[in-house]
Amino acid sequence: MYLPDHFVEANQSEVAALIADYPLAAIVAQTAQGMIANHIPVMAEGDTMLIGHVALNNDMHRLIPDHADVLAIFKGEDGYVSPNLYPTKPAHHRHVPTWNYQVVHVAGRITFQHDDKTKRAIVGRLTRDHERAMNGEAAWRMADAPRDYMETMLAAIVAFRIEITGIAAKSKLSQNREAVDHAGVVASFKARGLDRMAARMRRRDSDD
Amino acid sequence: MYLPDHFVEANQSEVAALIADYPLAAIVAQTAQGMIANHIPVMAEGDTMLIGHVALNNDMHRLIPDHADVLAIFKGEDGYVSPNLYPTKPAHHRHVPTWNYQVVHVAGRITFQHDDKTKRAIVGRLTRDHERAMNGEAAWRMADAPRDYMETMLAAIVAFRIEITGIAAKSKLSQNREAVDHAGVVASFKARGLDRMAARMRRRDSDD
Repeated sequence: MYLPDHFVEANQSEVAALIADYPLAAIVAQTAQGMIANHIPVMAEGDTMLIGHVALNNDMHRLIPDHADVLAIFKGEDGYVSPNLYPTKPAHHRHVPTWNYQVVHVAGRITFQHDDKTKRAIVGRLTRDHERAMNGEAAWRMADAPRDYMETMLAAIVAFRIEITGIAAKSKLSQNREAVDHAGVVASFKARGLDRMAARMRRRDSDD
Repeated sequence: MYLPDHFVEANQSEVAALIADYPLAAIVAQTAQGMIANHIPVMAEGDTMLIGHVALNNDMHRLIPDHADVLAIFKGEDGYVSPNLYPTKPAHHRHVPTWNYQVVHVAGRITFQHDDKTKRAIVGRLTRDHERAMNGEAAWRMADAPRDYMETMLAAIVAFRIEITGIAAKSKLSQNREAVDHAGVVASFKARGLDRMAARMRRRDSDD
């Protein structure tokens, strides 16, 4: 992607947080039948891998050969930036509209996993994370469902791993603006409920 | 994409609304240098075209030949669905987690526009729409900026049109669930601030 130096998201914990906070990635691949894209919740496994699963009915595991290149696209919050948000505007009117956003593009090589043990492990990890985040002590567990039902459900999916070969992360957050204009954008995002972007912008002001 | 019949978003005004409400598309293309993706705010021009512009420094207009196929990926709200959200769970425990979301994948052929008149027209349309939505009567207009500044800025961008060749739209919104479970998910989304998805789910209950 187009990634000027001042918009590179160089903070590795922020990149990891974007993947964790916006896990529904668009996974795109070029295949013999053209480009295909599917939105799939994934998660990082260490620093080198993404994991997830899809329905066996989803042709992607038939169209994409093992070890083929895929792109997993994660998108955080985004919002329009009007010149009206810049307090310096009346002084010179040398501003144009833009768009702020945070995205992470993960390139990697995918392999599909059909064996029961790997499927259970990957489904288990995703479930644990999302259930704990949503339900805490009341987290649903795979063991809560009848065994025959879980076996039927697991037979209807295929898991995958994406070995990460490259990450391009962009936080386009008015870093190239004067402090007073930057603050004007933060205030607007906050007012619009884009709290995560606003917090990231404020954090940049201090130590990061 | 994997698109079972019950998750097809067949309502054309909903598809148009998703593009209008979530305009920051990931535009993906296969090039001689591999797959490239850029997040770019675009808008529909009628039913047949998407329009937008990028920085001249963005290599995509050099890497993607005119009339090449691209995919523009729009993503609306999304959220985890825990089995705990289904009131029928205690009766049989035959539920697993899933993810709900709305996405629109627009396939098309891109052409880049370097002439000043087309660039002004496309920038003008995008600006008008976003400024009116955000600032109403106080909308910023291109004419507010000094002429030499606007000419410099316009010289630094390239516009594009994408002629739409296909649209795949998916609203994965618990349509395949019992009414009481569907209502449980709506209530959770509402509580989590995922109002747009919740509203779409309720609308489906009535007339659409």
